[in-house]
Order: sequence, then structure tokens, then C-alpha cells
Amino acid sequence: MPEEATIVLSEQERQIMQRALELARAVEGRTSPRPPVGAVLVRDGQMVGQGATAPPYGPHAEVEALREAGSHAQGADLYVTLEPCCIALHTPPCTEALIAAGIRRVVVAARDPNPHVDGRGLQRLRQAGIEVALLDEDDPLARQARELLRPFATLVRGNRPYVTAKWAMTLDGKMAAYTGDAFWISGPQARAWAHQLRDRVDGILVGAGTARRDDPLLTVRLTTDARRPRLQPPRRLVITSSGQLPSELRLLTTPEAGETWLLIGERVPAERRTLLARPGVRLIEVPCEPTGRVDLRQALQRLAAEGLMHILLEGGAALTGSAFDCRCIDHVAVIVAPRLIGGAGAPIPLAGQGLPRLSLAATLDDQRTQTLGDDLLIEGEVRYHPSSSVAGEAAEGAKNLTRK
Amino acid sequence: MPEEATIVLSEQERQIMQRALELARAVEGRTSPRPPVGAVLVRDGQMVGQGATAPPYGPHAEVEALREAGSHAQGADLYVTLEPCCIALHTPPCTEALIAAGIRRVVVAARDPNPHVDGRGLQRLRQAGIEVALLDEDDPLARQARELLRPFATLVRGNRPYVTAKWAMTLDGKMAAYTGDAFWISGPQARAWAHQLRDRVDGILVGAGTARRDDPLLTVRLTTDARRPRLQPPRRLVITSSGQLPSELRLLTTPEAGETWLLIGERVPAERRTLLARPGVRLIEVPCEPTGRVDLRQALQRLAAEGLMHILLEGGAALTGSAFDCRCIDHVAVIVAPRLIGGAGAPIPLAGQGLPRLSLAATLDDQRTQTLGDDLLIEGEVRYHPSSSVAGEAAEGAKNLTRK
Repeated sequence: MPEEATIVLSEQERQIMQRALELARAVEGRTSPRPPVGAVLVRDGQMVGQGATAPPYGPHAEVEALREAGSHAQGADLYVTLEPCCIALHTPPCTEALIAAGIRRVVVAARDPNPHVDGRGLQRLRQAGIEVALLDEDDPLARQARELLRPFATLVRGNRPYVTAKWAMTLDGKMAAYTGDAFWISGPQARAWAHQLRDRVDGILVGAGTARRDDPLLTVRLTTDARRPRLQPPRRLVITSSGQLPSELRLLTTPEAGETWLLIGERVPAERRTLLARPGVRLIEVPCEPTGRVDLRQALQRLAAEGLMHILLEGGAALTGSAFDCRCIDHVAVIVAPRLIGGAGAPIPLAGQGLPRLSLAATLDDQRTQTLGDDLLIEGEVRYHPSSSVAGEAAEGAKNLTRK
Repeated sequence: MPEEATIVLSEQERQIMQRALELARAVEGRTSPRPPVGAVLVRDGQMVGQGATAPPYGPHAEVEALREAGSHAQGADLYVTLEPCCIALHTPPCTEALIAAGIRRVVVAARDPNPHVDGRGLQRLRQAGIEVALLDEDDPLARQARELLRPFATLVRGNRPYVTAKWAMTLDGKMAAYTGDAFWISGPQARAWAHQLRDRVDGILVGAGTARRDDPLLTVRLTTDARRPRLQPPRRLVITSSGQLPSELRLLTTPEAGETWLLIGERVPAERRTLLARPGVRLIEVPCEPTGRVDLRQALQRLAAEGLMHILLEGGAALTGSAFDCRCIDHVAVIVAPRLIGGAGAPIPLAGQGLPRLSLAATLDDQRTQTLGDDLLIEGEVRYHPSSSVAGEAAEGAKNLTRK
């Protein structure tokens, strides 16, 4: 890969790239399995076209911007949040469209995390005589662009969806009272934020226990964000190894609110599958671990194969713990409510095996804290300790510790 | 009680009162059972004397300031964080000393929370022809003054020490790994802060389980605050219903680091008491509950009777949970470390009975959040829900809930 020149943008150019990022954000959760991208065309200091990734398998952002610009694209500069693609997947390569339109210069916020592209798009443009500029990796605009691309990067590199785990807990680390009562831990602003988060993903995942106990709808409500309308709501996903779910659950009886996909264990008998099958409900069989529980990694791979790029994991503790144990949580968003509930038996956010030593704990990259009413939101990218590992190895570590 | 005129201070006067508050803070943890108070005397725009509460049973702040001012006190104005006392307890009443010294005007940040004084000191001064001004309750300086007086207020009104519960937990609400490993949850800045907190209290309390498992020293280290030297370090307090503590514990073998008081159950046999008795260790017998466990409220009353005004509760979960259940936690200071450890069996900060419904959860008044390195500190005054109650009644509430 040739090194692209990195550049410092003028204040006006930064505003243009900021606009491209806004366009990308407005389609987050609406583009899978393609990344949300924004593009702005400028000629003679005037914006002549803008675009964002169209719904699945539609045109990319650059092509949308070219279409809007029409003949004004000739000699224009493109500001785009992601390196233009150079391979024909569902659409013709964007590089060729840009070359054909006579674009003068392309300013790119981030390289394509897809190893089949990564720099080749930029290379192709330069070969065609187009001036190419790539933002410095540490530029805040480049960081924002990469942040938007994380789910796509996880999909193309890890062959699974990006997983955000979200929970709300009291100041004493509880998800609910010892009786199971969980209404409400957090305040209205935090709950509205949680729905905005739902609106940014492709699927909302819970375990069977949470589905049974809370009977959630898993729909996007309470949000007033000005995003592009969705073709369909986030998939409502339930992992149930046994397939035992009460048939009156709202997730099974509200097809108008969106599809519900049940990730069931391979050994769920036919008669139980028949009970679950109904309008709006889809059964997806997943191989099980020796314990009889659905293999979470394989479940996620199945979701990736279905084009789901970003999954929001909303509990319960056992499922979230398993996801943590197999290092499948990429991002956490934790709402800490300044309340105390107490109780030795009150539900906690993360169960599972866990790590045996604090020195092996996962930490957060790009940590952010904000207040949401009385509550605090702490979020960041999960960085696993290199010596921590999947549950089995962690247990091995514990044995060693105990032997000391 | 006559209503005192509340006033708006000039910027210069605010700085003087701020100085009085600094003087008070510098003696926090060094004055029990008297409150930490600061006083500044000003004449003709010049500071002529300042003082803070002297060590136990010594002069009050006003008298210290008068002593420093000498003859310059005549016609001076006094700025003091607490209403001067008008009753002779261990020292003659401050009001009389101020009248005798010819003070012109007294500016007071907060009334005395002691019901035997509350306003009577101000009244006495006015009767003597001294101009008296009381800060508005909502004035930030008045709030700071009241904050410093909380332990004293709890002692004189509630007949028990003010209890601050402190814990550090991961973002998934754990105090330690499932193996018990707790080194370290939080970073160096948070740990230094925790030692500064220790330096502000009269005693540091842990349960017997924590004493056995962590073998803590419970001393003040890592702090560089410029406070007045202590006459003695905070008392190291352990509640042990059974009196069963390994004799090699550091708390029992380091008399040079301070006194250790063991709050033991009344039924601890004589031979075990003999084993525990050693230099620097004091045994305090406390009545037990029917369960055989030390009655926490009575233990706190014993500590109040010993003149302890502010206790720092440092765990473990069972003791902190019991203190929460009996509504004896006045203040919480929680360090949230942006780390994930997982584990269904990992220790949590607050056990005990707990409250049955989130609508009954305790909330925080005067909530404050600050970053300490990578960690977050969330602290505030615990406000119990009026319908929540001691453990027994909470359990009753749970039964009602279950019956539904």
C-alpha cells in the first residue's frame, strides 16, 4: 500500500467533513451490511451535492452525491467519511463513478477496514489522476469516522456483528430489587437515550430469562432523533436454548412492531418449534455447546450471515456474562443511577464465569462520560487483557491462583 | 426563635468567610465531639485574628481568633462558620467571650444544629447589642458550612456518629474478582482520595470478614493534605460478633499505627477475649440481635458515647448491607472504575436484605461527580424513601409484593 499524504484541513473544509459525518450518522442502523457513510461534493466553494449510504444494497454515499450534483460534479472536490470502494459487490465500484464524473480531489476521513479494499480505493483514484488526501489518524474527524465504522469493521474482519452491551444499574451495582422489580432504575433522560441507541442498531438481543421476566417489546420509542426513516425496525432477538417461551409474550404477539428472531438450540423438538412459529416470528437453529446452551459465537455468526452488523445486548446477566466470557462484547454503555437498593440476592448486570484477577480485567478505550438527568452514562470500547481469555482458560487461571 | 436578617455579602466578605471555611476544613476529623469550625476577625478591612476548633475539649474557633487578635478584637467583625455557642459544655460560652471582647458584628454561615443552641447564640449576641447576620440557607457558603457540620448534627440529633460508606466497584458492579482478588480496582488517584477521606474521620470501620480476608491496616497514607496534625490516627474499628479473629492480623499487631477497637458480641467467651486483649487493642461489648449478630445501631451508639462523630465504613458487603438496611448510612462515596471483571460469584458492594421495590430505593442529595484519573467518584447524602424502613418492615413489604 502506498502511503497517502495526510493533510491539515482548513476550518471551512472541516465544516464540510463534519457535514459528511452528520449525513453518515443519520443513516446509522439503516445500511447494514454496508457501513453508514456520508459524502459532500463542493465546487468553487459551493456545495453541489451530498449523499449518504442508501438502504441495503442501494447506492453508496458517493454515488448519491454524484447524482445530486449532476453535471456540477465535473471538477468538484469530494469529502467522504470512508475511502471509496474499488470492488464491485452489490453496486459498481465508487472509484469508477468518481473517475467518470471528473472529480478533481477526494478528501477521505478513514480508510476502508475491509482488508479487500484498505487503501486500494485511494490507490485507484490516484492512478486515475485524482488528488487524494487522507485525514491524519489522530484528527478528531478521523476518529469520529472510525467510530461510525466500527460495526462494519467487526463484520468484515471478525465475521460477526459488533456487540454493544447496555445496562442500567444502581450505585450499588444492581439491575433490579431482590424481588426482580426493575421499574425504573434510571430516569426519563437515560431511558430516552437508551431508545436512541436502539435506533442505531440492527438487532436488539435478550436472553430467554429476560424475555420471560420482563416481557419486553424491544421496540424503538421515546426518540426524536432526525434520522432517515427505517425500512424496518431493529430485529428483536431472543436466545433460547430450550425453546421454552410462554406463547403470550409480547415479542411473539406483536408482529406489527417488527420481526422477532428466536435463536433456538438445535435440539429443540419439532412440536415446540411449531408452537413458536407464527407471523413475524422466525426460528434460527444454532449449534449448542456441550452444556446444552446455544453457542453464542455461532449465534452471532448466524446473525452476521443475515447481514446484521450491530447488535444491542440488553441482558440478562447470564447472557451478558457469557458474551463477556467469550470476548464478544465490543462496546459497553452503562447507566449508573444514583440510587441504592441493597440486597444480597438482587440481580447484577454481568454474571457468567468472570475473570479470576483484577489485573486481567477488561478496560475501556475512548471512554466517555455524560450526565443524563440525575444519571451518569459511561461508555467505551472494551479492551480485553491480552492474557485474559475465554471462560475455560480463565478458570484455569483461577486454579493457579488458588494453588498459591 | 426570632428570625435573623439574612444578608448578601460583598465579594471581600465572601473571601473572608471562605477563609473561615478553610480553617474549619483543616481541622476536620480532629475536633470530635465538637464540630470543626473556623473563625476570622476583621477590623478596618484588616484580618486581626483567626482560629479553628482546637483538639477535643480545647477552645472553640471564636476564642482562638480572639486570642490571636488580642486588643485588636475591640470593635472588630467576626466571620464564623457556625453560630457561636451560648452554653457552657467543656468551655465557657463563646457568646460571652465575644461580648466581653467588644465585637461589633458577627456574620454566621450556619445555625447550630444542636437543638439546645439553634438560634439562642445569635439571640444572646443581639441582646448584647452586637449586630448579627446569618447567611441565606441557599448561599453556597452556607451550604459548605452545613456540609462540614453534618457529622456533628447527626451526633447531637441522632445520638450516633455520621456514617460515610465508601466502596470502589467495577463498571459491572463488582468489588473484587470471583476469587476474591481486589488489587486494584481503582487507580492511584482514587486510592489517594480514599486516604484523604480517611483523614477526615474519627474511625474506620470494617466487618470481621473483611478484616480476615484483606488483612487491612486501616491507616491514613498517601495523603498530602495540609491539615492540622492529628492527636491520634482514626480509630480502627472491627465489628466481630463471634470475636473470632486470627491473632496475626495486622490490625491486632501494629499498636504503633493506632488503636484498634473490637466491637464484640456480648456472648464472646472470656478466654477468647483474653486472646484478643493486647497493647493497642480495646474490646467493646455490644448487645446482640436475636440472630446472634452485633446490633449495629447499638454499636454506633457506643461509638458516639466514646465521642466518635464521623465513621468511615469500608465494607464488606454484609456489614454495609446491614447498615443500609437499618438506615444508618448517611453519605456514600462510590468509586466507579471503568473496568469489567464479570463473574456470577464475584463480591458485590452491598448485600443485606435490601429494598423490595425500586420505587423505594434511596436517592442522593447534593450529588457530586468528579473524575479521579480514569475513575469516577460519585458521592452524596443518602435520602431514604419515607416508606422504606428497617429490614423487618422491608421484608414485610416484599411479602405483600409477592402476594399480588
